[in-house]
Amino acid sequence: MKRHLISAADLTRDDAVLILDTAEEMARVADRPIKKLPTLRGRTVVNLFFEDSTRTRISFEAAAKRLSADVINFSAKGSSVSKGESLKDTALTLEAMGADAVVIRHHDSGAPHRLATSGWIGGSVVNAGDGTHEHPTQALLDAFTMRRRLVGADAGLGQDLDGRRITIVGDILHSRVARSNVHLLHTLGAEVTLVAPPTLVPIGVEQWPCEVSYDLDAVVAKSDAVMMLRVQRERMNAAFFPTEREYARRYGLDGDRMSRMPEHAIVMHPGPMNRGMEITAEVADSPRCTAVEQVTNGVSIRMAVLYLLLGGNEPALTAGNGTSTRTEESK
Amino acid sequence: MKRHLISAADLTRDDAVLILDTAEEMARVADRPIKKLPTLRGRTVVNLFFEDSTRTRISFEAAAKRLSADVINFSAKGSSVSKGESLKDTALTLEAMGADAVVIRHHDSGAPHRLATSGWIGGSVVNAGDGTHEHPTQALLDAFTMRRRLVGADAGLGQDLDGRRITIVGDILHSRVARSNVHLLHTLGAEVTLVAPPTLVPIGVEQWPCEVSYDLDAVVAKSDAVMMLRVQRERMNAAFFPTEREYARRYGLDGDRMSRMPEHAIVMHPGPMNRGMEITAEVADSPRCTAVEQVTNGVSIRMAVLYLLLGGNEPALTAGNGTSTRTEESK
Amino acid sequence: MKRHLISAADLTRDDAVLILDTAEEMARVADRPIKKLPTLRGRTVVNLFFEDSTRTRISFEAAAKRLSADVINFSAKGSSVSKGESLKDTALTLEAMGADAVVIRHHDSGAPHRLATSGWIGGSVVNAGDGTHEHPTQALLDAFTMRRRLVGADAGLGQDLDGRRITIVGDILHSRVARSNVHLLHTLGAEVTLVAPPTLVPIGVEQWPCEVSYDLDAVVAKSDAVMMLRVQRERMNAAFFPTEREYARRYGLDGDRMSRMPEHAIVMHPGPMNRGMEITAEVADSPRCTAVEQVTNGVSIRMAVLYLLLGGNEPALTAGNGTSTRTEESK
Repeated sequence: MKRHLISAADLTRDDAVLILDTAEEMARVADRPIKKLPTLRGRTVVNLFFEDSTRTRISFEAAAKRLSADVINFSAKGSSVSKGESLKDTALTLEAMGADAVVIRHHDSGAPHRLATSGWIGGSVVNAGDGTHEHPTQALLDAFTMRRRLVGADAGLGQDLDGRRITIVGDILHSRVARSNVHLLHTLGAEVTLVAPPTLVPIGVEQWPCEVSYDLDAVVAKSDAVMMLRVQRERMNAAFFPTEREYARRYGLDGDRMSRMPEHAIVMHPGPMNRGMEITAEVADSPRCTAVEQVTNGVSIRMAVLYLLLGGNEPALTAGNGTSTRTEESK
Repeated sequence: MKRHLISAADLTRDDAVLILDTAEEMARVADRPIKKLPTLRGRTVVNLFFEDSTRTRISFEAAAKRLSADVINFSAKGSSVSKGESLKDTALTLEAMGADAVVIRHHDSGAPHRLATSGWIGGSVVNAGDGTHEHPTQALLDAFTMRRRLVGADAGLGQDLDGRRITIVGDILHSRVARSNVHLLHTLGAEVTLVAPPTLVPIGVEQWPCEVSYDLDAVVAKSDAVMMLRVQRERMNAAFFPTEREYARRYGLDGDRMSRMPEHAIVMHPGPMNRGMEITAEVADSPRCTAVEQVTNGVSIRMAVLYLLLGGNEPALTAGNGTSTRTEESK
Repeated sequence: MKRHLISAADLTRDDAVLILDTAEEMARVADRPIKKLPTLRGRTVVNLFFEDSTRTRISFEAAAKRLSADVINFSAKGSSVSKGESLKDTALTLEAMGADAVVIRHHDSGAPHRLATSGWIGGSVVNAGDGTHEHPTQALLDAFTMRRRLVGADAGLGQDLDGRRITIVGDILHSRVARSNVHLLHTLGAEVTLVAPPTLVPIGVEQWPCEVSYDLDAVVAKSDAVMMLRVQRERMNAAFFPTEREYARRYGLDGDRMSRMPEHAIVMHPGPMNRGMEITAEVADSPRCTAVEQVTNGVSIRMAVLYLLLGGNEPALTAGNGTSTRTEESK
């Protein structure tokens, strides 16, 4: 695996399956008497957040702490960044302070790539969401959730999502979650269909490895998983829809529409959900909706990513047998 | 003990005495060469603060860290909460991330209760102050301070506050501190008297287990402890008093009034003090004023609460002998 | 060494050399498999920041965590400080919570001194920048950087900066960095020259142990190190210069001016740099510019300061042989 995680599009099938398998092992750490691994003791993970995102920040923070890393939170607000310090100077500062990994969230698409390829940083860079570009750990936790639900936690080890049919619904144009998912799911062998209002489909989507449909009812009936994107209310306006109700009617998921899905199929949402908008409360609270599991899985995935990027000196994880991960107890 | 700490009114006498006795043991941790216990290693405590309260937040943070827990601070400002995420979705997120305890501060009375009874959270909920309702760890640290000062640290073990006369002075109407104290002190056998401007006495106070008086001078002469509440200047207005000086004269504590207290009696304040308003500098800085001890005791009480709520797998504390708490050294 | 670090002017030559030598040992911690020392386990370091300064805060945070201390960040914004709590009450609170060290950044010159001499605090106080007064750890990291570059990391042990010629350029009037550097460099035997626009030279500078010059070109030719101060754009106005370009021309460092420096001489900057203002990108990115090393050295210096102030119970560091520092491994 490479030294950075910038884009889901960069991952090979084997990379991705290794991360998913490692995340299965990480998920078991929560069952230990002491829910920690000593693997990253003495390593420093910096959360460099240019955009507020408490959920993503604390997920990475929890993951790093469960691996015994030290975590430093750097919010760009109120920092010298807001006094005009460049990304370069911030990066050099973090590098100079000995950051082993920088988890970056940035409003500009491409900022994590710049950070990783600039030579400013010797440690690992993890993209925690950049502009409308990518959010690779979100795609990984989504794939992990699908594999667990559709294939099984143990049965899924070593497996990909070959032939599974996944539908992503909503504002594809502005969604880094959608973009990362399309790439990763394709790499893992799934067949992806996007459903979106015509004005919210990106130009050039025909080069993406997926289908586009405008008929949600027809698509859900053939889906193994339906992923509802969060509506950014501030991006909605009269140009797209007369009313929110119109959006909910055509692109939202309610109990009736969910009932057309195959029996085994799941409903996914990256959270936080706009109940009554893209998803009804009935669907959100149904056992088919994996929104809460996705959060749990997010910590496991981020542990796996930090472990694989930073744990180079440790004995390799033997995917699936769970015995080679050095534990606090056996130390 | 229950799984949550929502209200001082929920505590039995035995619950409360157990917490006070455990806090005595915790207070001794500060005298160790390494001022930490390993008890909560691998556990995650989330400080979920919807209101700013640095003092309370860092007291819980210090307490959790001395028990070796991982601490994650979640300020609702700037989080997706401010984008309209519901308390439910926030709770489900923290639960999904594996929070073992959620310490919640909220502007709405009842939010911690909702969190604890909703089923959203599998871990423990600790109320760190909700609206004008309750602030149970404040009441516990106050009771702990009284027992130490009026009965003694060692002599107090196993004891309550039977027959002690406690006076609480100020804006009772808006004070969760007063409300929690009245309930807990009553449970511990104390006799409580409230002194407040008539407009700042809550409706229904006659059902509280306490007396109400408007004659501060008469009451202080018979008190074992006089607790001055902080004046919220923003709540003061012409309807209540012509001037701040008038408030200080009638409901403040100065040296002259303090001199009428019995010799052994103490002055308490939850902090931060408005010197010159509800308390003069002379009183605030006198050895009879326990404001600073209360802060120290707050860390011990919060350690005790987290220990008792989360330490279920550990050998039980044997209150008073101090030998059964597993220490870092003996590990 | 004293219990506090308030001012570079308070340090004797031996104090300063001990800190620099200890920092050399701390710098080696970064080369260990586990980049941590257990020295301050169980100690609590509070970062009490009344001014935003993410860089300084995370440098102290990283330093404390590498020594295994618990770190609590206390930003005065949004705390009860902003509700009018006095420095005294804040100090008493931190003391009561058991802070072993308080790292304070304050907009008022003298606040750290007040904190240290008030008796409010039993632990150590470290000045992380107060008004226009002092920033002693910055001066120490600058001296450490000079000694490493001009004398050598190993060769420098036990040495001072006797006879080295150091030039500091820019807004001396408002610069706590300049003030701390002048005092410390003088103590270490260096010869300091200040170069500044006449309106930005402090009144009374003739009592400082340094020279003042207005001819940058002449001075750089004889300097072992040239330290460029950051321009505070908000302090620039028409009274001083017609244009920023005029400032850059007369007081900035570009490649041409740098080429007049002796071959071994270095360029220093406390960061963040205004490229194109006080320093050109060419100079900033040249190998002679130590801005990035200064950041790295800042962590080592702050580890050394916290170690020396708080590590009283530990075996003394034997400056220079590096064997007596108890390591995690040998514990």
